[in-house]
Amino acid sequence: MTTEATEDRLSMPLGEVMFGMRAIRRLKPDPVADEDIRSLIEAAIQAPSPSNRQPWHFLVVRDAEQRRRFGEIYRRAWWAKRADAGIHGPEDIPAEDRVARSAMRMADEFGQAPAVILVCATSPSVIDMTGVIPATQNLLLAARALGLGATITNMHPSVVDDVRALFDMPEGARVIYAVPVGYPRGKFGPVSRKPLAEATSQDRWGQPLA
Amino acid sequence: MTTEATEDRLSMPLGEVMFGMRAIRRLKPDPVADEDIRSLIEAAIQAPSPSNRQPWHFLVVRDAEQRRRFGEIYRRAWWAKRADAGIHGPEDIPAEDRVARSAMRMADEFGQAPAVILVCATSPSVIDMTGVIPATQNLLLAARALGLGATITNMHPSVVDDVRALFDMPEGARVIYAVPVGYPRGKFGPVSRKPLAEATSQDRWGQPLA
Repeated sequence: MTTEATEDRLSMPLGEVMFGMRAIRRLKPDPVADEDIRSLIEAAIQAPSPSNRQPWHFLVVRDAEQRRRFGEIYRRAWWAKRADAGIHGPEDIPAEDRVARSAMRMADEFGQAPAVILVCATSPSVIDMTGVIPATQNLLLAARALGLGATITNMHPSVVDDVRALFDMPEGARVIYAVPVGYPRGKFGPVSRKPLAEATSQDRWGQPLA
Repeated sequence: MTTEATEDRLSMPLGEVMFGMRAIRRLKPDPVADEDIRSLIEAAIQAPSPSNRQPWHFLVVRDAEQRRRFGEIYRRAWWAKRADAGIHGPEDIPAEDRVARSAMRMADEFGQAPAVILVCATSPSVIDMTGVIPATQNLLLAARALGLGATITNMHPSVVDDVRALFDMPEGARVIYAVPVGYPRGKFGPVSRKPLAEATSQDRWGQPLA
């Protein structure tokens, strides 16, 4: 695998990638090829970073036992975050709140994703922690171009120490996102967005775009 | 202009976009078409955001006087940041520090960029401020696909109030990045990155990737 190979494999037009990149939260258990994982990370590290420091580290979780353990931590963290908002079980999430139900299913099945890529910052400075986000977006776009589903998930602060211990992470490093990766159950598709006019101004806030 | 038109215009293969996307800091003064600006923002808002809140606002600065004023603020902010590090003028930046010299030139010429897109968060919460970063990366990739140069720049905290006043920004909104956009002086090209092995681990920190 070379950088050139990854560039060639990402042959899908940019527009097709971006405009059909719904978050994929339900994954098939089928394994993902090593070369696909490498291509995702090759694509990620092409992103810009503050002063080109490249403050990122990608920890790929593929071992079944490590995935199972991490899945348990993730599920616990997910429910801990909901408990902060008074939600203590599935019965507290309305059936019509499809995003929350889908996130719940994902949390419960997290350990079954064939691969989880932990996008880490190598220092705890704010500029380095936010500096890994453009690379994460590149990773998601590359996944879409390779037919792989993925989504960004956050870790609850209460499990930071458990995650650090599970993966032998050095002191200064931080997990910024956990990205489950696999072949999608269900389809890729467009996202729903507010009209462009609501999200734009020209020259002064509130003036419409030309 | 429709969303479909933007999708069709972004026909460059993803790999070609990502692997040739050097930061472009020197821009021609030639104007950028309205439809190009709209396409950049259409592409940006396809990015994911926390709970799909879409916490972004894109303020496009095109008016010559607003650009001039913003350019002055940016230059002042840039030098203020350098002063924090003991750098008070061009003579303090070594000729061999090409990134710093290039950033200095950009700061001095900022007001001459034909367009500056201010990527704003609509709330000052950390999750919303970081939530606009994936959209910013989409914007940069779309610029590359349309042959436009762009780069991410940060604002120094000391000028936040001046920027807010210049653009009539509402209280809760924050400028996260200022992105100058225009046709490049010089060429697009690949970036230099550390080897993949240094930025990756599998299953435990420090174990090589499969």
